[in-house]
Amino acid sequence: MSIYQYDHQIRVRYQETDQMGVVYHANYFTYFEIARTETLRSLGKTYRDLEASGCFLVVNKAECSFKKPAKYDDLITVRTIVERITHVKIEHKYEVYRGEELLAVGKTVLAAVDCNGQIIRLPQWLAPQDAQN
Amino acid sequence: MSIYQYDHQIRVRYQETDQMGVVYHANYFTYFEIARTETLRSLGKTYRDLEASGCFLVVNKAECSFKKPAKYDDLITVRTIVERITHVKIEHKYEVYRGEELLAVGKTVLAAVDCNGQIIRLPQWLAPQDAQN
Amino acid sequence: MSIYQYDHQIRVRYQETDQMGVVYHANYFTYFEIARTETLRSLGKTYRDLEASGCFLVVNKAECSFKKPAKYDDLITVRTIVERITHVKIEHKYEVYRGEELLAVGKTVLAAVDCNGQIIRLPQWLAPQDAQN
Amino acid sequence: MSIYQYDHQIRVRYQETDQMGVVYHANYFTYFEIARTETLRSLGKTYRDLEASGCFLVVNKAECSFKKPAKYDDLITVRTIVERITHVKIEHKYEVYRGEELLAVGKTVLAAVDCNGQIIRLPQWLAPQDAQN
Repeated sequence: MSIYQYDHQIRVRYQETDQMGVVYHANYFTYFEIARTETLRSLGKTYRDLEASGCFLVVNKAECSFKKPAKYDDLITVRTIVERITHVKIEHKYEVYRGEELLAVGKTVLAAVDCNGQIIRLPQWLAPQDAQN
Repeated sequence: MSIYQYDHQIRVRYQETDQMGVVYHANYFTYFEIARTETLRSLGKTYRDLEASGCFLVVNKAECSFKKPAKYDDLITVRTIVERITHVKIEHKYEVYRGEELLAVGKTVLAAVDCNGQIIRLPQWLAPQDAQN
Repeated sequence: MSIYQYDHQIRVRYQETDQMGVVYHANYFTYFEIARTETLRSLGKTYRDLEASGCFLVVNKAECSFKKPAKYDDLITVRTIVERITHVKIEHKYEVYRGEELLAVGKTVLAAVDCNGQIIRLPQWLAPQDAQN
Repeated sequence: MSIYQYDHQIRVRYQETDQMGVVYHANYFTYFEIARTETLRSLGKTYRDLEASGCFLVVNKAECSFKKPAKYDDLITVRTIVERITHVKIEHKYEVYRGEELLAVGKTVLAAVDCNGQIIRLPQWLAPQDAQN
């Protein structure tokens, strides 16, 4: 189920390539993080403000399947799909495209914590009142 | 099933932390890659030589569950567990420890390709003769 | 002397911060590289094509003075100033701004090499015919 | 003038290479930071403790001349040379070697600040009593 989705474009940096001539795989997880930040911004909110309000989103689980390599200077599109929001967790799915070509598919589970790392509730504007735990 | 396992220690770098004061999550995938490189070295082989021989190992799938954050200057141990080797793929599991504390658990699936990205067989010294496809 | 200059905006990524809560200093050199890539693009050329033609630009020297820290989610402007082009070298200067605030000033010297790392001449469209060595 | 010097070995990571098949230049600044951390450790102190005591060392200036490229899996030696310590600043020089081969030479100027970014005095064990400002 998709609650919301948003496409964000990223230009592949030289620094992100490795000697195989493609994007080093771990960078896709950074791409995912950028894409969900921009997804939040598209909703009129920023993750910066969320942190300033004392709510930190930490990654509990992250995974990615790599289909085809992204290359230097590619303008890739990262589609962020908000799949599930509970009172304390958010699940995102990601699809990375170069044009029509699907390069990678990923998933993350984020948890809300306070500045001491204790699990807290997501702010009300983010978690629906009738969300499951 | 564990075919082989090896522990490698990594000192967390300042560069690897983020403003939450912990290791940025994507860096664990880099740690996994370092740890499997050292696992190969512990067997008297190097990934550098493997590439020089025309065999490149690309990451098909990677995942990680984050339990507790690693911090700057921590001396963490990455345990690499070789779980499965077929003619064309290798599956590794990883456990990241700070002392006795389990910080993260990960998994990767690697495929062997040639310099054009075509799937090839793993060299015989790496894949058992009776390996499944 | 400025031959050409170009402003490029970069959004600071979470991954680029460190536990001091600011952008880790080494990332500015990556910002410089992105900015000169976009400077080239603004002239209708791409560094990707330059490499495809057999001309690689390697960094001979890089320096940066850090005035004020950039922070997460800042939209910074990197001004790239092409200061000098000879037959084999390019000197850039960089100024990093957050709004009107000057955050950092940098400089790089790039040399043109072939795929074997041998010094070569810059292509004619890049180096003026009357350039000094 | 060298007040103290220390050699630290670093194994080049795959993640640190770029599509030119060498270490991406910005990573040398990370190497410098690791090397000065280990230099401090060789003196029985840690930068972690320094931060815990409320003294943060920020990079004011960094530069590097790149002579020859380091490559994947190289075991490089970073020689850190403490050149000058005043009440508020530390100047380091760095030499990066692969065996006898000099690959790069760098320099940094660090300043001591408190958690609000205000310039403070270095702790007495680090700055000589007769140090100049």
